[in-house]
Amino acid sequence: MTNNTNFWDLSSFAARLTRDKNDCPMEDILNKNFFVIDHKSSSSKARAGRALTAHGEFLTPVFMPVATQATVKSLSSEELENAGVNMIISNAYHLFMRPGGDIIKKAGGLHKFMNWTRPITTDSGGFQVFSLALLRKIHNEGVEFRSHLDGTSHFFTPENIVDFQLVLDSDILMPLDECVKYPADEKYVEKSVDITCAWAKKSKDRFNEIQNNSFLFGIIQGSTYHNLRKKCANFLVELNMDGYALGGIGVGEGRELMDEITDYTCAILPENKIRYLMGVGTPSDILSAISRGVDMFDCVVPTRNARNGQAFTFDGELQLRNANFKEDFNPIEKDCACNACKNYSRAYIRHLFNTGEILAIRLITEHNIFFYAKLMNSAREAILRDNFEIYKKDFLTRFNANKTLG
Amino acid sequence: MTNNTNFWDLSSFAARLTRDKNDCPMEDILNKNFFVIDHKSSSSKARAGRALTAHGEFLTPVFMPVATQATVKSLSSEELENAGVNMIISNAYHLFMRPGGDIIKKAGGLHKFMNWTRPITTDSGGFQVFSLALLRKIHNEGVEFRSHLDGTSHFFTPENIVDFQLVLDSDILMPLDECVKYPADEKYVEKSVDITCAWAKKSKDRFNEIQNNSFLFGIIQGSTYHNLRKKCANFLVELNMDGYALGGIGVGEGRELMDEITDYTCAILPENKIRYLMGVGTPSDILSAISRGVDMFDCVVPTRNARNGQAFTFDGELQLRNANFKEDFNPIEKDCACNACKNYSRAYIRHLFNTGEILAIRLITEHNIFFYAKLMNSAREAILRDNFEIYKKDFLTRFNANKTLG
Repeated sequence: MTNNTNFWDLSSFAARLTRDKNDCPMEDILNKNFFVIDHKSSSSKARAGRALTAHGEFLTPVFMPVATQATVKSLSSEELENAGVNMIISNAYHLFMRPGGDIIKKAGGLHKFMNWTRPITTDSGGFQVFSLALLRKIHNEGVEFRSHLDGTSHFFTPENIVDFQLVLDSDILMPLDECVKYPADEKYVEKSVDITCAWAKKSKDRFNEIQNNSFLFGIIQGSTYHNLRKKCANFLVELNMDGYALGGIGVGEGRELMDEITDYTCAILPENKIRYLMGVGTPSDILSAISRGVDMFDCVVPTRNARNGQAFTFDGELQLRNANFKEDFNPIEKDCACNACKNYSRAYIRHLFNTGEILAIRLITEHNIFFYAKLMNSAREAILRDNFEIYKKDFLTRFNANKTLG
Repeated sequence: MTNNTNFWDLSSFAARLTRDKNDCPMEDILNKNFFVIDHKSSSSKARAGRALTAHGEFLTPVFMPVATQATVKSLSSEELENAGVNMIISNAYHLFMRPGGDIIKKAGGLHKFMNWTRPITTDSGGFQVFSLALLRKIHNEGVEFRSHLDGTSHFFTPENIVDFQLVLDSDILMPLDECVKYPADEKYVEKSVDITCAWAKKSKDRFNEIQNNSFLFGIIQGSTYHNLRKKCANFLVELNMDGYALGGIGVGEGRELMDEITDYTCAILPENKIRYLMGVGTPSDILSAISRGVDMFDCVVPTRNARNGQAFTFDGELQLRNANFKEDFNPIEKDCACNACKNYSRAYIRHLFNTGEILAIRLITEHNIFFYAKLMNSAREAILRDNFEIYKKDFLTRFNANKTLG
């Protein structure tokens, strides 16, 4: 099948959810058969699927915009929904610090607090404990640290982090883990994998003790060491987690190693469980990982880059602060159906950046989030038509032809 | 008439424009009978009117949110329209500096550049020349200064400032004037009034030379000196400007003097011309000026205060950063129909402020702009029902009962 013209027919873009949150019988959710594969690519390991949560279905491959502080920076929840976003990811560490679990519990959970009705994944905050927190000390029972905000002492355990994420009413929970830096010494990584596995077991036990409508994933660590990735994956598969995340990837090891570890790890994982590559990435990273069998992604790239003036288009990246856009009255992307492109020009957005106006950030963020949702939707459609590899090649040829950054 | 219950029926709020921009025959606009009074209050000098521009009608009393850099800080043009905004004001000085007239001309004017289809007033930038610019020197021909941004030299004349505002395709133009500080020496003010009058004449002559669909107001200066206000007003009335602005008020002279000068000056002005009190103000300032016969207002208060966490409600002002809102899951204002109140709680907005998130600013700004539009609409309805003084008293009683700030 080579007819791929409608890959670029942007008007065909639409979220194709078959069930929303009002149509998710609790028995389906409690059965925990939450992931179904609609089609597997015949020429790669790409899969198109769907998953059912207490807050509705999401389609895979899926990209989750990052809502660290219970907001995807600069956007409202209504704008995310209008941009075709299926699911977002928030962060237990940050929400624990501010506003704290009590307030979100009183609000009726994170969905109600931030007025987002679709699924939410929450990261455990392990990554933040190891990257942001102060005076960190790892024990078998958990990790002791001081807040990066006010220096107050805290002790995160696998159990209390599960509890906290259930208070948030998160749909997909991530267990406490240690995400090691790259490069890392094999001995250190081995010890770290052991801790991560032991914490995953404790997380699962705790999760099973508490009645809930959520799902708990396992996080596979092991840096670039195959034997350690394998050890970790096998342990977690034995625990029968609801999905498997690849952690500690995209942390500086480079694209070749990233692809190799993704290939290696996905091959160990059961076909029928959802796979999530944490913190990745650029459009190119994501398409590469999809062809390797990954279903879920999250990354700050579309939002953080927007705040620096960088817009993603199917014809490459644009740095909208550049003077060459000052008299360019085209939208960010021709024929794009996003709110920013329907209403505003590159010249106007450049002026807003130049004068330090918030609306500049909003408009590029809105466009980038729409672009990522569209990218995932068109990737999914290509998988369903069994021509994802052609789609990927065509996308990258066009995307890289005018690439200005990254 | 004492039945005022529906003042507070917020659901009755709607812009009641009878003609939009597609229904403004050019002959009506060229006739320059652009202001019509619908009703004059029997118990005060309050008036309800309507004015017709090439970009549609606006109803008075009207409040113009400030779009200094071609954006009402943090909001999109769609949001302004949804908030019930009739008209905005931008600024010739700032737009001259960035992005410059060439770019806006190429965009097809300021309306197209910022995607705002309703009327726009532009201030001449005189106030900015006298408050922001460097090494300022006043000549009879205009004012020489250096940009506050990059130190470049510029010379604003009454003529080139009219030209520039016509390039912007502004609906209401303000002439170059000198806005003196308070307090000011009478001799200095007299000289300044003479310059302002001479510049108004030059502005009017220039405006008449160029075919356009816009309106040119006169700005009455004179500080707190009755004789100088009168001299300036009489001169401008003689020039038969399209409307009359009261400048140099609300610059620190206090409410009593503000009211006195407003009363004095309005009494000199013809009844059939629109009156604009520049840079004013708080809800209380505005209602006071409406009862003194003023029709138009602009002020940064609703937007600037929003950026500091302050929200306006009919029950007074709220400082949403305060800890007492941390578990308050009510909207900013009960039963308010604005987007922020329909979707988000005080507790969520406080959390967003606390974590430095842009959405906090957006939501309060959106609410405050909606509040101001609603205030003006309900004031107008009260005038039409001939019970504005009761409305004002009731509003102030309720508004001040829980006042937390200013």
